[in-house]
Amino acid sequence: MTALEKYVPILKWGRTYNPALFGRDMMAAIIVTIMLIPQSLAYALLAGLPPEVGLYASILPLIAYAIFGSSTSLAVGPVAVVSLMTAAAVGRIAAEGTADYATAAIMLAFLSGLILVGMGLLRLGFVANFLSHPVISGFITASGLIIATSQVGGLLGIGTYGHAMPELLGSIWASLSQINFYTLAVGMASLMALLWIRLDMKKRLIAIRIPAPVATTLVRAGPVVVVLLAIGASALFDLGGKGVALVGDVPQGLPPLSVPVFNLDVMAALIGPAFIISIIGFVESISVAQTLAAKKRERINPDQELVGLGASNIAAAIGSGYPVTGGFARSVVNHDAGAATPAAGAFTAIGIAGATLLLTPFLALLPKATLAATIVIAVLTLVDFSILKKAFAYSRADFAAVIITLGVTLVLGVEVGVLSGVVASILVFLYRTSKPHTAIVGQVPGTEHFRNVLRHEVETHPEIVSIRVDESLYFANARFLEDCIYERVSGRPEVKHVILMCPAVNAIDMSALESLEAINERLKDLGITFHLSEVKGPVMDKLRATQFFAHLTGRIFLSQHEAVSALNGKNNR
Amino acid sequence: MTALEKYVPILKWGRTYNPALFGRDMMAAIIVTIMLIPQSLAYALLAGLPPEVGLYASILPLIAYAIFGSSTSLAVGPVAVVSLMTAAAVGRIAAEGTADYATAAIMLAFLSGLILVGMGLLRLGFVANFLSHPVISGFITASGLIIATSQVGGLLGIGTYGHAMPELLGSIWASLSQINFYTLAVGMASLMALLWIRLDMKKRLIAIRIPAPVATTLVRAGPVVVVLLAIGASALFDLGGKGVALVGDVPQGLPPLSVPVFNLDVMAALIGPAFIISIIGFVESISVAQTLAAKKRERINPDQELVGLGASNIAAAIGSGYPVTGGFARSVVNHDAGAATPAAGAFTAIGIAGATLLLTPFLALLPKATLAATIVIAVLTLVDFSILKKAFAYSRADFAAVIITLGVTLVLGVEVGVLSGVVASILVFLYRTSKPHTAIVGQVPGTEHFRNVLRHEVETHPEIVSIRVDESLYFANARFLEDCIYERVSGRPEVKHVILMCPAVNAIDMSALESLEAINERLKDLGITFHLSEVKGPVMDKLRATQFFAHLTGRIFLSQHEAVSALNGKNNR
Repeated sequence: MTALEKYVPILKWGRTYNPALFGRDMMAAIIVTIMLIPQSLAYALLAGLPPEVGLYASILPLIAYAIFGSSTSLAVGPVAVVSLMTAAAVGRIAAEGTADYATAAIMLAFLSGLILVGMGLLRLGFVANFLSHPVISGFITASGLIIATSQVGGLLGIGTYGHAMPELLGSIWASLSQINFYTLAVGMASLMALLWIRLDMKKRLIAIRIPAPVATTLVRAGPVVVVLLAIGASALFDLGGKGVALVGDVPQGLPPLSVPVFNLDVMAALIGPAFIISIIGFVESISVAQTLAAKKRERINPDQELVGLGASNIAAAIGSGYPVTGGFARSVVNHDAGAATPAAGAFTAIGIAGATLLLTPFLALLPKATLAATIVIAVLTLVDFSILKKAFAYSRADFAAVIITLGVTLVLGVEVGVLSGVVASILVFLYRTSKPHTAIVGQVPGTEHFRNVLRHEVETHPEIVSIRVDESLYFANARFLEDCIYERVSGRPEVKHVILMCPAVNAIDMSALESLEAINERLKDLGITFHLSEVKGPVMDKLRATQFFAHLTGRIFLSQHEAVSALNGKNNR
Repeated sequence: MTALEKYVPILKWGRTYNPALFGRDMMAAIIVTIMLIPQSLAYALLAGLPPEVGLYASILPLIAYAIFGSSTSLAVGPVAVVSLMTAAAVGRIAAEGTADYATAAIMLAFLSGLILVGMGLLRLGFVANFLSHPVISGFITASGLIIATSQVGGLLGIGTYGHAMPELLGSIWASLSQINFYTLAVGMASLMALLWIRLDMKKRLIAIRIPAPVATTLVRAGPVVVVLLAIGASALFDLGGKGVALVGDVPQGLPPLSVPVFNLDVMAALIGPAFIISIIGFVESISVAQTLAAKKRERINPDQELVGLGASNIAAAIGSGYPVTGGFARSVVNHDAGAATPAAGAFTAIGIAGATLLLTPFLALLPKATLAATIVIAVLTLVDFSILKKAFAYSRADFAAVIITLGVTLVLGVEVGVLSGVVASILVFLYRTSKPHTAIVGQVPGTEHFRNVLRHEVETHPEIVSIRVDESLYFANARFLEDCIYERVSGRPEVKHVILMCPAVNAIDMSALESLEAINERLKDLGITFHLSEVKGPVMDKLRATQFFAHLTGRIFLSQHEAVSALNGKNNR
């Protein structure tokens, strides 16, 4: 594999492309296109952008991903959480519906693209690791709730604003008297229809002897039928004239190419959000890509995925779109429909481009309430409170991280929410490792094993204190170790030796080394010698490079058994 | 020990106080008083406050510490680093020399006192652990350099400003033409005299057959003699009339009692700095206290120390002072001079109170350059570049933490500096643990030991991959582990079993548990069973509470040897 092939995977798989693969990719593309049309329109509205921008964001980004992406199943495009984050970030610097708002969304995609490509080239994919599972779960659930709530206005025909719960609920409450009942009817009908399609339709189709694969495909086309029915109803009953908000005129044709407008103030305001969106988008995308790759026994290269997603976002900026990432539902559909190479994405792009050329005139009459219903149904899968129960049962630390992320995201919004979660999970981790598990150990009679005196029947010697510490030693627990050892020897004049048993010490940093030196000095003042046992190879290498062994009053023993035998023997002599 | 005795240690040691202890405490108090007078005046100037405030800060805080403190050696009062931090914090909201400035310094002491007492009562002393040794060393060295540089103006008779290097050096350079040569002469003479006292005087005294203890005491009184000589010279040569800055009129009498002025804006501006000052002051103080306690075979209770220092700072606020903490040099002197109980501090306070009543009229003529020289000599001991070499030799991570703290403190000031250091050392730690050491292991022939295949001659079986991971598994390395395992099995269809050897895994958090579940699922898709060996007791307890074992395709083995024997045997059947 050449370097170019590494960064441009299409050069590799493109060489062996053949009609069989083409057929599979084409089939997948048709199904994903049908699924993507209503979603693209709806997510653009969620992002505060005109609906056609959703279609634009589903054309060039897919082609860019087909060239630079490494997953054969991932389907990129507008997704719910990133759309909400776009609305929150752009809404802070421009008013919805203005040209500045659209320009800022394009800049956000561009910055996000640069960040992702940069992280990919610098191999910084590991940064995503700092989003722990509880943080992601809490964040996604909170985002789903916020998104669903933000669509309540669309379903009731009232205006709402805000990207966090207090503002949203307040604005719903304030305009509750202005409900448009025609809109409510359309919204509820769409919601019911979409729910039925999701929960019941396949069963019914199979009951009337339609083969399962055909039924699955029909279910996937279901939302498009709802959209068509809503357009029909809108025309038939003149819903627009009755105060139901319609999508309105949508420009027909391919997306106008755009160049990001380089305004330093706007860039400064968007760079932070762009970073958070990039990381969230990457984490969402890579987990889907890895899950689907495993099913095909393929491997995903996270750094190349960063490049692929980055290229998609730069393409989104060029094609008048907004930030995109790999979507979970559409990728699963793409995979199930048999997509064999990233070309399936390119064919989807062609399908969406066709839609923007041919279908847009019909969209003018589509009630926005139907799109709101589409979003509500789509995000319901994001909301998962079971993580709360699971985390509570597993550990208080993980539970705290979920609760903080969930709560802060709901109350203060997506960016503060995810940052709080990351900070909380890091602090919780540091706190836990700052109070490591320690045990006084003794010898299991008749063996060379040493175990916790509190849990086992073991032999100890009054003049020897053996302490095992079950954690790497570093700055946050260095002082704890000092306290722990002084406590075990204070008021016990019979103690002659302290042995620190280190089989679980994977590293000793400089602060911990200082503490070990302080312990050695203070024990020396008390007439106690200080020994280490079962020190790991890499840790020994580090310690050997210092003066520690020169000052150590005691010795280093390969095993605890050796240590106790030697010291006990010495005292008996 | 009752709860009250725990929080008010004087109730305990006071009961057994006797004339012998009184004599020892009295002797120590006299020596510390003599040492403290010039230092208190000088540090107040460093903090941007009138010199008498330094004396005030050496009265009530010492009495408060005698009541609430737990160290029998610690001497509290104004110290260099905290004075610099006070100047940086207060200088941001008020101009030096104004009433607002003094009020803000009092509020800073008050807030710092509340924070310290609060942390003590909530047992939050562990927060100080997040200041790693490299961060403290880098910070103290940088602070020493900044303080010494800030005194250059005083030694040259020019005005300087700023609390970080670029500003300080710029202001020195800008007014270099205005050097007052009389000031320069006084400054240099004071500097030389103080240096001689520190480096040479004791040797000379012993050479003329003065007993060593007497010589030590005379050396400690030396700086007071320099102050007296400077006052004499000032009167004799009318230095004030020649443009040498003098201390000027100092109010005679005990400190006026003050109540902090509760201004919300000021409090909001000072709460952050107060927190940082509290932590830095506590860390400085507790290390001195613990070192000296160890020499007396006593133990320091960190949480009670927080209460003691907090009470001292609240007392400083009431007594028109500014933030205080335990000083290194004076505590060592106090200890060496035989202080037996915290009463020594109370007697020192009485000494300083006497000085404010009797000596202040003489201070008017003292050149400020002499105080600047006192500061320069005192902070030279703070500057220690050997940490750079030591950290570089030990680990790049620790070196990075030193360099970042040192550099940022010098360039951007104390608060940003210490925060950058803390953040850097946490990130470095997370980065290190996010890429843990892993090894493929094999059996050392003829033993039950398993070692790294790269380091040892060992036996392996083609259908078994044994991976040992030398780190707790948590969110930052969960994905790394997944990648690591997939890499070891991809393209090796002969692999039937993966054994994860966990003797160094001290914890598994929820993110890592998710990863283990994902690994299990994906290996299952590949027809590979997944096993764990040598899982620690506490980790097993956690895992047992989950569904993990129910889904695990393989088994849990007590030892790696057992695992390989069982799996190898199974395959041979």
